[in-house]
Amino acid sequence: MNENRELAARMCVLGVAGRDAARALREASGDTKNKALLAAASAIRDSAASILAANAQDMAQAKAERLSPALLDRLMLDEKRVAAMAAGVEAVAALPDPVGRVLARWTRPNGLDISRVATPIGVIGIIYESRPNVTADAAAICLKSGNAVILRGGSESAGSSAAILAALQAGLKAAGLPVEAVQLVPTTDRAAVGMMLAGLEGSVDLIIPRGGKSLVARVQAEARVPVLAHLEGICHTYVHAAADPAKARAVVVNAKMRRTGICGATETLLLDANCPRELAVRVLEDLAAKGCEIRGDGTIRAIFPAAKQATEEDWRTEYLDAVISVKVVDDIEKAIRHIETYGSHHTEAIITEDAGAAERFLAALDSAILLWNASTQFADGGEFGMGAEIGIGTGKLHARGPVGVEQLTTFKYVVRGNGQIRG
Amino acid sequence: MNENRELAARMCVLGVAGRDAARALREASGDTKNKALLAAASAIRDSAASILAANAQDMAQAKAERLSPALLDRLMLDEKRVAAMAAGVEAVAALPDPVGRVLARWTRPNGLDISRVATPIGVIGIIYESRPNVTADAAAICLKSGNAVILRGGSESAGSSAAILAALQAGLKAAGLPVEAVQLVPTTDRAAVGMMLAGLEGSVDLIIPRGGKSLVARVQAEARVPVLAHLEGICHTYVHAAADPAKARAVVVNAKMRRTGICGATETLLLDANCPRELAVRVLEDLAAKGCEIRGDGTIRAIFPAAKQATEEDWRTEYLDAVISVKVVDDIEKAIRHIETYGSHHTEAIITEDAGAAERFLAALDSAILLWNASTQFADGGEFGMGAEIGIGTGKLHARGPVGVEQLTTFKYVVRGNGQIRG
Repeated sequence: MNENRELAARMCVLGVAGRDAARALREASGDTKNKALLAAASAIRDSAASILAANAQDMAQAKAERLSPALLDRLMLDEKRVAAMAAGVEAVAALPDPVGRVLARWTRPNGLDISRVATPIGVIGIIYESRPNVTADAAAICLKSGNAVILRGGSESAGSSAAILAALQAGLKAAGLPVEAVQLVPTTDRAAVGMMLAGLEGSVDLIIPRGGKSLVARVQAEARVPVLAHLEGICHTYVHAAADPAKARAVVVNAKMRRTGICGATETLLLDANCPRELAVRVLEDLAAKGCEIRGDGTIRAIFPAAKQATEEDWRTEYLDAVISVKVVDDIEKAIRHIETYGSHHTEAIITEDAGAAERFLAALDSAILLWNASTQFADGGEFGMGAEIGIGTGKLHARGPVGVEQLTTFKYVVRGNGQIRG
Repeated sequence: MNENRELAARMCVLGVAGRDAARALREASGDTKNKALLAAASAIRDSAASILAANAQDMAQAKAERLSPALLDRLMLDEKRVAAMAAGVEAVAALPDPVGRVLARWTRPNGLDISRVATPIGVIGIIYESRPNVTADAAAICLKSGNAVILRGGSESAGSSAAILAALQAGLKAAGLPVEAVQLVPTTDRAAVGMMLAGLEGSVDLIIPRGGKSLVARVQAEARVPVLAHLEGICHTYVHAAADPAKARAVVVNAKMRRTGICGATETLLLDANCPRELAVRVLEDLAAKGCEIRGDGTIRAIFPAAKQATEEDWRTEYLDAVISVKVVDDIEKAIRHIETYGSHHTEAIITEDAGAAERFLAALDSAILLWNASTQFADGGEFGMGAEIGIGTGKLHARGPVGVEQLTTFKYVVRGNGQIRG
């Protein structure tokens, strides 16, 4: 009880400091924020030795605790990764300032001049797992968009994150901004996460979870403040009857196999029953040749015997691995219905030369990203030309698709008058 | 237990029907939606007798239960109010279609053509109190924006709402749209609200509470789906030292007294210590002459002895009545700090002829609406030229300020390619 009270007090201080820092950031110029970012990038480079030393300790601990090789790889930093982190912060500095943009402006018949102006959201809480580079990426995106951030990383990367934080705060100091603009929860106590989700007495405006399904589920179940979640990407590629065979083969292999671990990777391939059988077989052969396991329905297994039998569970699974589920659908309406039933409203593609069919697909579905004749792996802020992103939003409110610096702003209405009163 | 299970089953059916209706609405043309709205308006007019009969029963019950005169007035319908309701639905039909707007469009170096297109949110749950006209207003705004709506009105207006619902559903039927596009929770059991807040098994995309503080607080505490809340409007008008006296007097009286019960009414007047004493006294006299009770700090009471002593609680109070709290502040920074401390991020105004001071006020504060030389009573969708609104959002996410049909849409990215794969 006493421990919890002490933790609550420490977290409350974090919240209040974040709110004060947010006020300073809201009024900071683009130049000041960029100065902080560039100084932070330099500090990351200059502190490479101490960051790597802290990471070596985290790694030793993680190995002693027998973490999986995949987790160890996510946790691991080397000189190249530290350099990439610094370059990432510089890339964020190079983006246009998202704050102060006039999003719309109009004049009313009574002479009131109304503008909708982009403003920071305030204090953002980010809860993430093992990758220590998220500490720098997330802080840079929040700082650029004028938001204070409270970071809660995985306990296994605590030492690495603290070393990175020191560099980020050096950057803030160099620009005359409060170091509390970027704070790290100073404990691995899980109760601290609950306090963040409760909003730290009204100090947190938005929570962004970055991590696996169970983390996001906990955040969505417990949060008392708005959540910007990027959930699973159960992405579909639908090869329509009028698909160009060469495009279909190239796009499907890329959509599944370019990188299997990203949320925009295709997990289910829908083949139209009116596709040429040869195209279907070729696509499956291409995937198999790249090392992809194929789980198909009965029709698929008949034309491609190496396929395993897909179960109902497969249509709902985000493999994030070299596995694909494949289903034959009677027509475009069946494809749409399958995606509506099993998809996660992330990203879906249609491959066809029939513009009418494509427009039907693009109009009927309401996923965050819908593509025609392109790979689902384009679901990415960089590929959209939006610069760094903090994830791909799959919710319906505020922001969907890539969440970059513009998506971390809100707006206010500024109304200029000349003494108008309402009649 | 069994009762709850039965209720849960009924509510789940409502959710599934809403989701199916949302799919149909998503693809409905603007013409079809307008046809439904105009037919609904006609049906409201044609059903005036049955709506008024149902309302008379609600009123009799409410009187028997000794509801307050204010509540009885909100509940009461007469021919004029029914006609206004029908006209309101027609006004929504006359708005431009908010769905399908291309919000942005750009082409990437690899030829991908990316559009951000406005789409409906899906299924919206609206929880409101006694005014039966909300049934028609809210349904019309949701329908126009392509959303299905599940309405949960106050138990005291259940009969009136059901009669209005019948007219709305007649309109939907006339346009060939599913009647489940507008549903009313068919029970006054409070447990039904809890089920809506839990999202009806994933069927509800957004909850909008319309009502008093305790309703909104319950919704925010319990909701497991996003909430678009319009909270209190503790609105401020700050009379700067360089205010034009005539504008200051006209705007302050209008901001407080035009209508005291709306969320954009000014609740606290901040007078700059460098304002001419005569202006301060005149403003207070104007307010008192209109019947406004003045609660001032020590300085105010010294220059205007009729004022009562303001307490700390007054600075945090939304009176919604002919009462104003008045404070003298040393300078604009003190005014800004007072608003940040006590305000609700709704609407604030500065009265000044000093453009630099005005811009400082407009930049430093982050309320949803900031006005220069105009009345806070302009905080209204109609006054902004946005047409009908469902409220004034005071949250930071998705929509702030007036929430009209555009604010009840979200967007998706539509990407048109020519076989692009990601490198």
